[in-house]
Amino acid sequence: MAREHLVDIARGVYRSFGFSPIDTPSLEYTEILLGKGGDETDKQLFRFTDQGDRDVSMRFDLTIPFARFAAQHLQEIGTPFKRYHIGTVWRAEKPQKGRYREFMQCDFDTIGTTSNAADIETLFVIHDLMEQIGFSGFRVQVNNRMVLNGLLDKLDLHDKAVGVLRALDKLSKIGRDGVITELVEKVGTTAEQAKQVIELVAADGNTEDVLSRLESLLEGSEQGQIGVARLRELFAACRTAGLDERRVKLDVSIARGLDYYTGTIYETFLDDLPGIGSVCSGGRYDNLAELFTTQALPGVGASLGLDRLLAAMEELEMIESTSTPAAVLMTVLDAEHVGDYLRVARILRAAGIATEVFPDPRALKKQMKYASRRGFRVAIIAGEDEFAAGTWQVKNLAASEQASVEESQLVEHIGGLLAD
Amino acid sequence: MAREHLVDIARGVYRSFGFSPIDTPSLEYTEILLGKGGDETDKQLFRFTDQGDRDVSMRFDLTIPFARFAAQHLQEIGTPFKRYHIGTVWRAEKPQKGRYREFMQCDFDTIGTTSNAADIETLFVIHDLMEQIGFSGFRVQVNNRMVLNGLLDKLDLHDKAVGVLRALDKLSKIGRDGVITELVEKVGTTAEQAKQVIELVAADGNTEDVLSRLESLLEGSEQGQIGVARLRELFAACRTAGLDERRVKLDVSIARGLDYYTGTIYETFLDDLPGIGSVCSGGRYDNLAELFTTQALPGVGASLGLDRLLAAMEELEMIESTSTPAAVLMTVLDAEHVGDYLRVARILRAAGIATEVFPDPRALKKQMKYASRRGFRVAIIAGEDEFAAGTWQVKNLAASEQASVEESQLVEHIGGLLAD
Repeated sequence: MAREHLVDIARGVYRSFGFSPIDTPSLEYTEILLGKGGDETDKQLFRFTDQGDRDVSMRFDLTIPFARFAAQHLQEIGTPFKRYHIGTVWRAEKPQKGRYREFMQCDFDTIGTTSNAADIETLFVIHDLMEQIGFSGFRVQVNNRMVLNGLLDKLDLHDKAVGVLRALDKLSKIGRDGVITELVEKVGTTAEQAKQVIELVAADGNTEDVLSRLESLLEGSEQGQIGVARLRELFAACRTAGLDERRVKLDVSIARGLDYYTGTIYETFLDDLPGIGSVCSGGRYDNLAELFTTQALPGVGASLGLDRLLAAMEELEMIESTSTPAAVLMTVLDAEHVGDYLRVARILRAAGIATEVFPDPRALKKQMKYASRRGFRVAIIAGEDEFAAGTWQVKNLAASEQASVEESQLVEHIGGLLAD
Repeated sequence: MAREHLVDIARGVYRSFGFSPIDTPSLEYTEILLGKGGDETDKQLFRFTDQGDRDVSMRFDLTIPFARFAAQHLQEIGTPFKRYHIGTVWRAEKPQKGRYREFMQCDFDTIGTTSNAADIETLFVIHDLMEQIGFSGFRVQVNNRMVLNGLLDKLDLHDKAVGVLRALDKLSKIGRDGVITELVEKVGTTAEQAKQVIELVAADGNTEDVLSRLESLLEGSEQGQIGVARLRELFAACRTAGLDERRVKLDVSIARGLDYYTGTIYETFLDDLPGIGSVCSGGRYDNLAELFTTQALPGVGASLGLDRLLAAMEELEMIESTSTPAAVLMTVLDAEHVGDYLRVARILRAAGIATEVFPDPRALKKQMKYASRRGFRVAIIAGEDEFAAGTWQVKNLAASEQASVEESQLVEHIGGLLAD
């Protein structure tokens, strides 16, 4: 129930921004998937030969199938194309806490545009996702890969980019001095280069100041200046649109992996559970489907980490411990009146009050035990006396209060109890 | 989008009756699935050996995994247990119109009770599904397997049940005389037995009269009398609860397969497209999980035929031809004002009006073409003049009408256009 609720919220947010749902088959030709996610992923493919002698595999993410889909169908669909995709993926991993062989991904992307408006909107989507799921304290950390790439170009370190990024990834663990040592000793930069890299990524303070410092550090790098300008526009739009400033933060140190992203990047952390890691991450890429088409498909998107979010929500006690989607249990005492129990349940449902009817006329005590185990909030009780009087007993289970209510007043009475 | 809308409605209805969502893994041990759906289904399994040397297969329906799940977990869950399950299943079929190798099933069941209240409620769920999807003309055909089984017992034809059911299945094709000939010549009944079987299943007229005729035909069969009594109670509850009588019809001829169902059975036909077949079918069974547990798990449930329904809705033009979930397109003319476009889109969204922002400041003509291709209903336009005046041009795309609207009036104005 909690997962379904989360997915409902995500879909509502995606739709409110005009993203359309798509789905692709679970099985792809193995050649489509192989080599796209690295050696580890190749080993984790659930792969087999089907009845038609085709070499097929179960998808390990939603990005590769989307790239294949976009390459095949983009002529009909046209750009810009905004899609979300909530689907199951499979990896033959060793299952452990938070890692499963089968899990759900929840991606959204805008493709066919390089416009910064799409980057800014991606941030707004992440913001609304967090807010609507119910987190008041969260922080979307934003960076632009062009900033660091610009510096690497300027310092003539582009060949060593992978090593530099790997070293920077450890910043929070080994600190500035540790990273400088690694840059010089392992990656092979000069001490001055290492210092400049650190100066860039460790830039801290208010956003405007940091952006100005980046601008001067990146003097002479066109790429770097574009990155800073796009970040500046993003933060200006946040102010114009009235987003809470504490919720969006420039963090020059984040890079998100080595190769894929080329522009704005996003990571999202919960104030109350920063240790759980980023719950919504993504970024801009130059070419979604270069392996499947010669048409360049730039885009920007992110992925909501459902399993991580569910774990967080459980830990933060944001998940109700009910196991019924209905708030009201209609108990059944007199089998002769089954039509009346069902009739009144129907009246409540028509008024938008989800109502379950207990199927058997078992002892009331048993039915009330069922009600409390499942987490119903209200139970309705009627036996011979009530049918004679035309009334229904309504029990507020949390408050242990009971009232005798006329049938014509039931919707209003129960509606009032549930609104509390 | 249409499929997602349909699934949303189904989930809403299921929840309103207190059914909880469950999901099970796509992969089961092959031994769980093998032999459960017949030879044809065994051949259609997508089966392979996984990295842990396990013989696994992709599920071909949701019933067997639910049976396995119920057998394993029912002690914790307790009964009655009401669940719905909307999930993908796979069969290595030859794809053809309406048949796919991967498709979605949409089941609901109440298990752990033999109460007729659950049978009646199953009918109510089907009724609400059809009504909320938007079909005004539909007919749920109801029968009870105990009626025919009772007659077969009474006539000492139980050994020949399979042959009798096969012959009856052809009633609409080969007519009464054809069925009688087949019963006598192929199945080996006497002429008198064949006549009685036909008399039973061809019983027609108003429900009360048919039930009375069944009662006398089944005199001496306890099973048959119970079947009639349960049907009588079901139709009485429909009247009490105020269901439209034209929407629920007793049809003694339906049997729904040979072995699985043992009590009430349901088929649902659309008045405007009867030829498409039953769009929601199900019934009562004695034992869901006899292959997995010794605990008897009686239950009742049905399955909504999503693909068939989508085909029907398309044919009946019940599906809107839009490809955007958002009603409003915010066009973008002036890149300097990206923050304002995004800000106003945010105001609309906060008022519940889904709004897409076009990412690039392309020529307005191009953006309007995009709007009409995707099926937006309203476009908002603002350039230099509008920003100077603090107004927004709002274009009603269906009516080709345009108005200049102050920002503070936008929500009300657009809300009014969309409400029309």
